[in-house]
Amino acid sequence: MSDDRYRRGLDRLRTLHDVVGDGFLDDLRAIAPDFARMVVEFPYGDLHTRPGLSARDRQLTIVSALAAQGTAPKELKIHIRAALNAGLTRDELVEAFMQLAPYTGFPLALEALFALKQVCAEHAQSAEPAKED
Amino acid sequence: MSDDRYRRGLDRLRTLHDVVGDGFLDDLRAIAPDFARMVVEFPYGDLHTRPGLSARDRQLTIVSALAAQGTAPKELKIHIRAALNAGLTRDELVEAFMQLAPYTGFPLALEALFALKQVCAEHAQSAEPAKED
Amino acid sequence: MSDDRYRRGLDRLRTLHDVVGDGFLDDLRAIAPDFARMVVEFPYGDLHTRPGLSARDRQLTIVSALAAQGTAPKELKIHIRAALNAGLTRDELVEAFMQLAPYTGFPLALEALFALKQVCAEHAQSAEPAKED
Amino acid sequence: MSDDRYRRGLDRLRTLHDVVGDGFLDDLRAIAPDFARMVVEFPYGDLHTRPGLSARDRQLTIVSALAAQGTAPKELKIHIRAALNAGLTRDELVEAFMQLAPYTGFPLALEALFALKQVCAEHAQSAEPAKED
Amino acid sequence: MSDDRYRRGLDRLRTLHDVVGDGFLDDLRAIAPDFARMVVEFPYGDLHTRPGLSARDRQLTIVSALAAQGTAPKELKIHIRAALNAGLTRDELVEAFMQLAPYTGFPLALEALFALKQVCAEHAQSAEPAKED
Amino acid sequence: MSDDRYRRGLDRLRTLHDVVGDGFLDDLRAIAPDFARMVVEFPYGDLHTRPGLSARDRQLTIVSALAAQGTAPKELKIHIRAALNAGLTRDELVEAFMQLAPYTGFPLALEALFALKQVCAEHAQSAEPAKED
Repeated sequence: MSDDRYRRGLDRLRTLHDVVGDGFLDDLRAIAPDFARMVVEFPYGDLHTRPGLSARDRQLTIVSALAAQGTAPKELKIHIRAALNAGLTRDELVEAFMQLAPYTGFPLALEALFALKQVCAEHAQSAEPAKED
Repeated sequence: MSDDRYRRGLDRLRTLHDVVGDGFLDDLRAIAPDFARMVVEFPYGDLHTRPGLSARDRQLTIVSALAAQGTAPKELKIHIRAALNAGLTRDELVEAFMQLAPYTGFPLALEALFALKQVCAEHAQSAEPAKED
Repeated sequence: MSDDRYRRGLDRLRTLHDVVGDGFLDDLRAIAPDFARMVVEFPYGDLHTRPGLSARDRQLTIVSALAAQGTAPKELKIHIRAALNAGLTRDELVEAFMQLAPYTGFPLALEALFALKQVCAEHAQSAEPAKED
Repeated sequence: MSDDRYRRGLDRLRTLHDVVGDGFLDDLRAIAPDFARMVVEFPYGDLHTRPGLSARDRQLTIVSALAAQGTAPKELKIHIRAALNAGLTRDELVEAFMQLAPYTGFPLALEALFALKQVCAEHAQSAEPAKED
Repeated sequence: MSDDRYRRGLDRLRTLHDVVGDGFLDDLRAIAPDFARMVVEFPYGDLHTRPGLSARDRQLTIVSALAAQGTAPKELKIHIRAALNAGLTRDELVEAFMQLAPYTGFPLALEALFALKQVCAEHAQSAEPAKED
Repeated sequence: MSDDRYRRGLDRLRTLHDVVGDGFLDDLRAIAPDFARMVVEFPYGDLHTRPGLSARDRQLTIVSALAAQGTAPKELKIHIRAALNAGLTRDELVEAFMQLAPYTGFPLALEALFALKQVCAEHAQSAEPAKED
């Protein structure tokens, strides 16, 4: 049964985070191998894969929370990318982060908007066809 | 034009917060009357009424941020009630607050779930028909 | 295997939190039954029961984190009680919370000290023999 | 020399916090007597009594920080009272807390404004002449 | 009337933030043009330009809040620079950030002091006459 | 007597932070000389040197608090290094930071684990014998 949680979690993690996920897990295994397993099992195997709320809505919830905390900028960027993968558009995320300003203050809303800008720029770049010479 | 922002904001504030909104504004006017106007104009007149993201998604964004901060429990309850008014169901909010646990820790996710439980109980009570004798 | 995690977790939860634990889980089941299971499985079944760090040191870690956050005063009191159950003395906790002041500021260190004072008073009261007349 | 720090600190603490200060120190001595001494010596004996910034400006700094944290509402009220004692007016504090909203979000700015309202109400009440019959 | 808020805000923003302001607004317009307008209108047009508290005191309030949050180091530096432009001296800001230590902990007070040191070094450099050869 | 606090504090600071401590104090003296003295006197001279809790347990308390705050990553690394100097092992710190996840969320627990990984890598490097040719 635990194997099920792991496999289900890893599938969802790879769908949400594409290329980023496995490299991250490798980095983590080098310091805390059991924790790398738990990261897959609990957030992804137990929660992200539940019915009752869409992947899109789950990511909207997560990026809002990470933007409001302001203490995990790398995770915020990773989950903004996952939010785009889960079907939220760039324009919806702009609206969501603007809507945060009255509740988190402008500085954290601005950090989230600039993180989104960077993620979109990186995404566009990686989507460009390789230049031929 | 400023009058437009105020009127548009007050309409939206009353739609989202029903009976709670006006009493809150009266309390605030007693200490900071200009701020009571700004609360209506900026968050509600400028942001909540924008197109591009539904009222439901805006409230999901806001309750996720307030739950993650953990420093405004009264506002969290007010916005959970507004989230229900904007079309999020109790079960969707349960899923959203569960999904927060890996990002905010369990204590703040639990606080949000218990706040939701209270709001639903109060809502149910106020919706009960008056008892006849 | 999941049943193992749950049983192992519930045992540890009851050892650490004595009378408080089951009532808390009942309250939680009324709003989010699956989350009540996860609270037992992940923090208690997966982490608190690991070898490599004593229950005493785990509770010192947790009360320090909760004191530093300042956003979960009820959980702080519950985990101070668990810290006493796990073998930390009142005087060691006084030293630990004093040591926090330069890192968290005095207000949060003071909140933790007053929470400890309350927990000790409640503990003493519940430990008193019933008065005979 | 340490006695100097303590005496100088206690004088300043009593000037800033009037009736509140000694009761607070007594409560603290019951759980952590050495910490009660340090509270007097370091914040008050070392810092509040330095030249180079007025008592008024020091209190403006402190209430702004406590309002922005949102995790020590009791300390915020105590320092708002001290801010009034140090020469800041109610209207200046209203302006300062309004000015915080774009940086802390509205919820924490509102909490600070309502704390100020309470402190002023308590202050007014305690300043009323005893009624004769 | 909205144009008034924008113009009044932009004037104040340029006075406080000198060269930094316009570049920042351009960066923001590239991802969220309406938000760039709101940044000018609400914090600057509505609040910074109000009577009742000096620009100096407003900046003391803001840098204290940003230092206490610790989540917006770039904004903290921008507002320290604005604080110097608004009449606070380097020595007054040193005193203010030292005074924060008992309330925010030393780490955040130290971060603010080192941010001030950097801002002063950059300011001194940009104020140096161009070297002739 | 104040000289005692300073000397006692400086000894402890150098024991805990080895090479890092003096360079840090020099940097701080350049902006706030009196604060450099207070950093030695209060946290180190008054608190770290008290009996009643071991240096190891004090560092476990401090790294847990700094990890939970997430706002002082440089200080967290400095105190992880001091934790190793005070007798906590790498494996105990891995367990402690894993144990934080349910209370702080995964992102802050992960930041602490990656900070530990970096500190251990730097430590290993500086402990390597000079290569002979």
